[in-house]
Amino acid sequence: QHSTDPETGRFFMRQEFSLEGLDVTLPEFERQFSSIAETFQMNWRIAYASQPKRMAILCSKYDHCLLDILWRVRRGEFDCEVVCVISNHRDLEADVQAFDIPFHFVPVTKDTKAQSEARILELLRGQADFAVLARYMQIISGDFLESVGMPVINIHHSFLPAFVGANPYKSAFARGVKIIGATAHYVTAELDAGPIIEQDVARVTHREDVRDLTQTGRDIERNVLARAVRAHLEDRVLVFENKTVVFE
Amino acid sequence: QHSTDPETGRFFMRQEFSLEGLDVTLPEFERQFSSIAETFQMNWRIAYASQPKRMAILCSKYDHCLLDILWRVRRGEFDCEVVCVISNHRDLEADVQAFDIPFHFVPVTKDTKAQSEARILELLRGQADFAVLARYMQIISGDFLESVGMPVINIHHSFLPAFVGANPYKSAFARGVKIIGATAHYVTAELDAGPIIEQDVARVTHREDVRDLTQTGRDIERNVLARAVRAHLEDRVLVFENKTVVFE
Amino acid sequence: QHSTDPETGRFFMRQEFSLEGLDVTLPEFERQFSSIAETFQMNWRIAYASQPKRMAILCSKYDHCLLDILWRVRRGEFDCEVVCVISNHRDLEADVQAFDIPFHFVPVTKDTKAQSEARILELLRGQADFAVLARYMQIISGDFLESVGMPVINIHHSFLPAFVGANPYKSAFARGVKIIGATAHYVTAELDAGPIIEQDVARVTHREDVRDLTQTGRDIERNVLARAVRAHLEDRVLVFENKTVVFE
Amino acid sequence: QHSTDPETGRFFMRQEFSLEGLDVTLPEFERQFSSIAETFQMNWRIAYASQPKRMAILCSKYDHCLLDILWRVRRGEFDCEVVCVISNHRDLEADVQAFDIPFHFVPVTKDTKAQSEARILELLRGQADFAVLARYMQIISGDFLESVGMPVINIHHSFLPAFVGANPYKSAFARGVKIIGATAHYVTAELDAGPIIEQDVARVTHREDVRDLTQTGRDIERNVLARAVRAHLEDRVLVFENKTVVFE
Repeated sequence: QHSTDPETGRFFMRQEFSLEGLDVTLPEFERQFSSIAETFQMNWRIAYASQPKRMAILCSKYDHCLLDILWRVRRGEFDCEVVCVISNHRDLEADVQAFDIPFHFVPVTKDTKAQSEARILELLRGQADFAVLARYMQIISGDFLESVGMPVINIHHSFLPAFVGANPYKSAFARGVKIIGATAHYVTAELDAGPIIEQDVARVTHREDVRDLTQTGRDIERNVLARAVRAHLEDRVLVFENKTVVFE
Repeated sequence: QHSTDPETGRFFMRQEFSLEGLDVTLPEFERQFSSIAETFQMNWRIAYASQPKRMAILCSKYDHCLLDILWRVRRGEFDCEVVCVISNHRDLEADVQAFDIPFHFVPVTKDTKAQSEARILELLRGQADFAVLARYMQIISGDFLESVGMPVINIHHSFLPAFVGANPYKSAFARGVKIIGATAHYVTAELDAGPIIEQDVARVTHREDVRDLTQTGRDIERNVLARAVRAHLEDRVLVFENKTVVFE
Repeated sequence: QHSTDPETGRFFMRQEFSLEGLDVTLPEFERQFSSIAETFQMNWRIAYASQPKRMAILCSKYDHCLLDILWRVRRGEFDCEVVCVISNHRDLEADVQAFDIPFHFVPVTKDTKAQSEARILELLRGQADFAVLARYMQIISGDFLESVGMPVINIHHSFLPAFVGANPYKSAFARGVKIIGATAHYVTAELDAGPIIEQDVARVTHREDVRDLTQTGRDIERNVLARAVRAHLEDRVLVFENKTVVFE
Repeated sequence: QHSTDPETGRFFMRQEFSLEGLDVTLPEFERQFSSIAETFQMNWRIAYASQPKRMAILCSKYDHCLLDILWRVRRGEFDCEVVCVISNHRDLEADVQAFDIPFHFVPVTKDTKAQSEARILELLRGQADFAVLARYMQIISGDFLESVGMPVINIHHSFLPAFVGANPYKSAFARGVKIIGATAHYVTAELDAGPIIEQDVARVTHREDVRDLTQTGRDIERNVLARAVRAHLEDRVLVFENKTVVFE
């Protein structure tokens, strides 16, 4: 599969190799490929499907995105290892432990935000390959993102760029939209402005109040997040200039 | 069909009457109903299906929304009379005349905007019951809206409130959204902020450039506008506090 | 809310009453309403929102529909009581017990089908108000349906009437469809032919094999079943001549 | 772009070449490529974007698919030449002539079917590269298909394989489906069983009668057909074992 960006003339390619019959070691393969890549001035990266990615999940009180991910992992839909779940609340501790996954309670207050983020960094670095914010209700600082050294995927409960920030369902209701949505994106320093991986929507009517929109929205959120996480796990997402190329 | 707004305790009702066997005249019926309505402090309005609404269409250079409406009228999908088409360009004149509908060329420049709007008002008032902006590429002034005395429906080529204003497909491409949309709404003085009647979306990928989005978007625009116009024609839309109740 | 069937001239109505200030007992209310109903030759039924329905769930080995329902009940999305889960396999026993819900293992073989159905009837009758087949992989006999005396909702993993019967994803793959779906319906003696309550679909491509379709389909199945169960719980579904009226 | 069929181990590839700087003639290029293709036992075909395909359209009385195609050709959405429109009715003659396209009236009766098909073959062979049945309400014979020697694309007004044959909206209404659809496919000898190119759907409710479904369906039909025709025009469709690979 490949794809070109007509505006910049850039060329994006994702190639799956079946390694049966490869007669060099992987490091040797990478070394040799490196010189080809240099010739064509490629930016390149190799990921090995045999090494499942390590995922850390951050959540708060809402369970729908968290449970959905844990179910999919257990069922074998996601090829990954969940190394831990980190939360600023204890509400979901029992749910996580039922899956035999370590749960870390890291409370956050206005005054302790820096220490809390430091604690989370400690739990992530070297332990996880990427983190998922499964309706984690804290804003991540730019400092954290600079230090964490791994992709962080967030699910925002609106059809971005509509309804950035807090309470999108309330805003959607106030504006009287006929469709609501959810957006999974890589987190960047600017709030809800990172590269979009996946979006989806559902029709709503005037009959639905904020509570109904929230309920309908939950089903979209978990599905959108799941598709984004799957694409990331399968190394199908390339980020370029704050946009994504998602190979199918 | 009815519906209640749980926040305000208000009650909305739309009732279709079959007039077979009605033994009073319509004015008499309205007079008698008026006293019932007063008792319950209703805001009310009666529309007669036997009197098709008179529609005026404003357009510029894009033909897809205009032609779609004219086709539907001709085919009998819309129960209405198209009294005229007004445009600030001559590009679509022949298309309109092929349907035997009067075409009025009303050019607009920065300096003549007021006179142009005055001319349009002249063409509309008393002649049409509502106006449709079928990709009319001029911003309507607040003065015009105050004077026109009829509902004006616009189709905006984005999923509002995302991408208000000019060039939404360009903005959608720049933001890297995975879904684009269109929104039909009643025009109010604030740009693209009026009560939403209908919205729809289509999935897009990184492969699509601005030209592709524009092409995909056209198919959504005309369908969304058609559904909004139909709902309006069938008196299924109530506006309340900048939102719509759309009865089915 | 109401609705008419233009073909037969029949009239369907669903009316919610708020009982605050009702000055007669409920039996007295029903007795009085009964005489009104007789006058207009109504078929009628009253359901009390204060009495949550009792749901029984039948499942086999797939967990996605079962877990989704149990989780929605737990989080208060569904106003009902799950009286028991019945399965012809033990695979999901631990999952069910984690929700503190009785699990009954009722194996079914070709030779014991009649006894198994008798055992299930025993577990349901008088205990449940309706049953949900959450991917229960046994065909229910006509005798069972005649005896059970309660609505039975099934989720079929195709867009009915396409792909009736076993292995719809395999058939969908073989036919090369570009969209797959799921259908929730009331079970009748004829296989997959009962009144449809809800359907939904998802786009697929030539790239997806049967395993991929199955995975994509799971997300549709659980959402479609959930919407059907919610509509049933809220008494929004009327069945008439093998079709449903689903009030919103 | 490429794609593999995991069941058969077959490999499908579509490659666009930009011919700037090609220093051999096209026939020479094909000759040389031919020997590469032989080495890898490829089935291959080259299409030149510089040679727009010639399309013939067959229609009956419904105008929506026909007008939609003619309009897309006119506005440059489709890169092709419409060589003629053939119809068994005269209803759409004026519409076609307004686009300056030859219109051929070829009536069909039970007794003249063979002669009519012979006449159509005469009009198509050597004149067109493919034919589109834009709601052409006659069944095409197997003999015709064997003789015509070009792909024939049909739009069927149901979500195939549901509701094969005549009156699918009536059948959809009778079955009480909650979603209707349309399917574009290559025509084969077996009715409505050819390789599916594109499908789409729309939600409907119990409120909609056959006339409403027909109206809603028209909007799906024309969009599905347009997407299929576009994919065919851009040589993005490969047919293999009665299924399609549609490259994006």
